[in-house]
Amino acid sequence: MKDFETDLAATAGRVEQALVELLGGPDAPCGRLGDAMRYTVLGGGKRLRPYIVMSGAGLFGVPETRAMRTGCALELLHCYSLVHDDLPSMDDDDLRRGKPTLHRAFDEATAILAGDALLTLAFEIMSAPGTHPDGNIRAALVLELSRAAGAAGMAEGQMRDLEAEGRFAGDGCPLVLSEDEVLALQARKTGALFRFAAEASAILGGADAEDRERLSRYGAALGRAFQIADDLLDEEAETEQLGKAAGKDRAAGKATLPAVIGVEAARERLSEAVAEAHAALRDYGDCAGPLLAAAEFAAVRRK
Amino acid sequence: MKDFETDLAATAGRVEQALVELLGGPDAPCGRLGDAMRYTVLGGGKRLRPYIVMSGAGLFGVPETRAMRTGCALELLHCYSLVHDDLPSMDDDDLRRGKPTLHRAFDEATAILAGDALLTLAFEIMSAPGTHPDGNIRAALVLELSRAAGAAGMAEGQMRDLEAEGRFAGDGCPLVLSEDEVLALQARKTGALFRFAAEASAILGGADAEDRERLSRYGAALGRAFQIADDLLDEEAETEQLGKAAGKDRAAGKATLPAVIGVEAARERLSEAVAEAHAALRDYGDCAGPLLAAAEFAAVRRK
Repeated sequence: MKDFETDLAATAGRVEQALVELLGGPDAPCGRLGDAMRYTVLGGGKRLRPYIVMSGAGLFGVPETRAMRTGCALELLHCYSLVHDDLPSMDDDDLRRGKPTLHRAFDEATAILAGDALLTLAFEIMSAPGTHPDGNIRAALVLELSRAAGAAGMAEGQMRDLEAEGRFAGDGCPLVLSEDEVLALQARKTGALFRFAAEASAILGGADAEDRERLSRYGAALGRAFQIADDLLDEEAETEQLGKAAGKDRAAGKATLPAVIGVEAARERLSEAVAEAHAALRDYGDCAGPLLAAAEFAAVRRK
Repeated sequence: MKDFETDLAATAGRVEQALVELLGGPDAPCGRLGDAMRYTVLGGGKRLRPYIVMSGAGLFGVPETRAMRTGCALELLHCYSLVHDDLPSMDDDDLRRGKPTLHRAFDEATAILAGDALLTLAFEIMSAPGTHPDGNIRAALVLELSRAAGAAGMAEGQMRDLEAEGRFAGDGCPLVLSEDEVLALQARKTGALFRFAAEASAILGGADAEDRERLSRYGAALGRAFQIADDLLDEEAETEQLGKAAGKDRAAGKATLPAVIGVEAARERLSEAVAEAHAALRDYGDCAGPLLAAAEFAAVRRK
């Protein structure tokens, strides 16, 4: 795990550098909007999604620059989702990655627009020739990412999450979801982007449907592990350690697995998800090492 | 003009039908999010941007289904921009197309998410094989649309518009912009999508750089005409006629050409913009008739 964390940190450093170039070069967003985008994207984050894209790329002989651009586009889209989820009318969070959320540091209108612009920039980067010389591959990346992020993916997951809080019910009480309903919600809210991260490496490599399916299964299992671990951390951790308010999700009536089936059973589901991630990559041997380590890490991380 | 309006209305009917299929089919967004998306997209609007894509497609022999999908994607993106611009922290509008804005009919969180999902869906439709069999063309459409909509285009235009209101200045007073600054702001805020609408038809037709440039110039001039006409209407019209609150832009200190150079001078700029739109399409003869009529219409419309 120590080796993995060193590897992840080194990759995060390179991702940071690439994001600085994308957001700070001569064609970079300027003025207040550009400042807001840089404030929220740069200087923080584990960069786990880009790490998955780049580690997966190793399985399919994808040049690093292509994987890096794809990973950065995905990270920008992830940052957009955090900015909008943090808004007062959504989760109303004050802290993110240990600093004030974008709408607190700037204002709400700027945060909405910066989120919109980050989402849009993700598609701009992905569709530009630098990401892959073959337009068919770039279009496939855009198609899968938009499916993962949109009304059948992440956006729908966030909508259901708000509904589960009882936000739109007459009595305002949290809904009681079943285990399957919680898992389906989280597969959209968190899982879809991890699934895309893993599948993107196969798309970039021009891999066949079987490879795409394996990576996709791995990504879905990884996302599940990540979210269950997140919810367990929310139950246990201190605010300082998380860099965001602890215990808040449970207090808000968020649909979490520990809340529905208890902490011990949730730990079991976490182990099962890690085992599924391993099983999906069985055929790739040692080359899959970094991806397998990422699944372990998602499960045991402390923040 | 009568013939044009009949043609525009007939096209709007077909666009509506296509949007119903995209938003209501078996894979359509479901639940509260899907309801919100349909509420805001269906049953209204001139559908001028899809009309431009489809009329331009006639110049380059583009099959209607491809132009229709591209036009619908653009219309969804336009709808997202209206939903977010109407939010309380932005322009705080209660009425849109004669009915309550999305955040009034539903709530703010749902409006933000539905806007996000519409933006994402635009890219999903554009990148899917049904829009064009050649992935290079689909990727080019995504690239140009994301440039038009993002931090160098529409999102930046909205940011500057809010800044021009004096939103973020210490004294809260509207800034005094020059004519060129107003035009540069509006070229982003409104012009970029019209420009894309026109250029998209050339991209779909695999046209060369010269054709793309001509259509792009036409679209930019059309967008300018549309926005100046909009600002003149805001000065003159009644709320009932507009389907949104009249006089509000001026009252909010929005940067408009009539406010900066006066109504009469703004009318002259409007005529010049229409003339530029005509000049850009000089070489296409009668085939450009619908596009030229659209530019006339943008200038003389009463809502």
